[in-house]
Amino acid sequence: MSGLSDSVQRHLAENTLGVLGTARPDGGVRQTPVYFVLDSDTILISTESKRYKAHDVERTGRASLCVTGHARPFPSVTLEGPARIRRTDIGEPTAHIRERMTGEPAEPSTDEQLAQRDRVLIELEIEHVYGENYLADE
Amino acid sequence: MSGLSDSVQRHLAENTLGVLGTARPDGGVRQTPVYFVLDSDTILISTESKRYKAHDVERTGRASLCVTGHARPFPSVTLEGPARIRRTDIGEPTAHIRERMTGEPAEPSTDEQLAQRDRVLIELEIEHVYGENYLADE
Repeated sequence: MSGLSDSVQRHLAENTLGVLGTARPDGGVRQTPVYFVLDSDTILISTESKRYKAHDVERTGRASLCVTGHARPFPSVTLEGPARIRRTDIGEPTAHIRERMTGEPAEPSTDEQLAQRDRVLIELEIEHVYGENYLADE
Repeated sequence: MSGLSDSVQRHLAENTLGVLGTARPDGGVRQTPVYFVLDSDTILISTESKRYKAHDVERTGRASLCVTGHARPFPSVTLEGPARIRRTDIGEPTAHIRERMTGEPAEPSTDEQLAQRDRVLIELEIEHVYGENYLADE
């Protein structure tokens, strides 16, 4: 069960792209667009372990995701909290994210197959929800 | 003259919304959707001086803006650099940002009128451009 409101859950189901924010080693902000999926109170993002954003998450243990809609007035929400890199039981969610990215069915790979391709998940525990604007009423 | 490529300039002209990333006092990342306008090599964002994002900019002197398109494959670019709060000569750009937000013509206010409404500009000097993906060819 998710503690998120219905309107936030619907927004995250309808919008597949978010902007991930992580802290660089020098304290600056790194931002990259990412596809994601909501799993209960956790956001899952597929990436490669060699990416700077993955290093930021490992180093700081936190991440932020801002998800905006794609037409005026641009509904939006930002989610923030503890984050970590996950390497096990990632086949199903990775396939789900891929389906949301491509709009086509995707077969889950095994953890071993994903490890060979350096694929990992960023797991963002939603601790803080803010900036809820123009979300559809529940 | 802007040192930005034509494809980045066109992307910033066509897309009016970006995600602003600033560093919180605790080192975490704050993200908020903002309307903006490109002025040569500077991004201008209208806000109120009381907002946390304005405080972050004043404290850290830096900001990040990620601008994504609104249809697959979601063209995107991130801009980053020194940032400051501007309170003078802000009438014209503030009206321009408002026009991009509403799609309607806007009359410029004076600096004094804007000061009464606590309006300021965040001025982000584009020092670093990265994450250029799926931008239209020049």
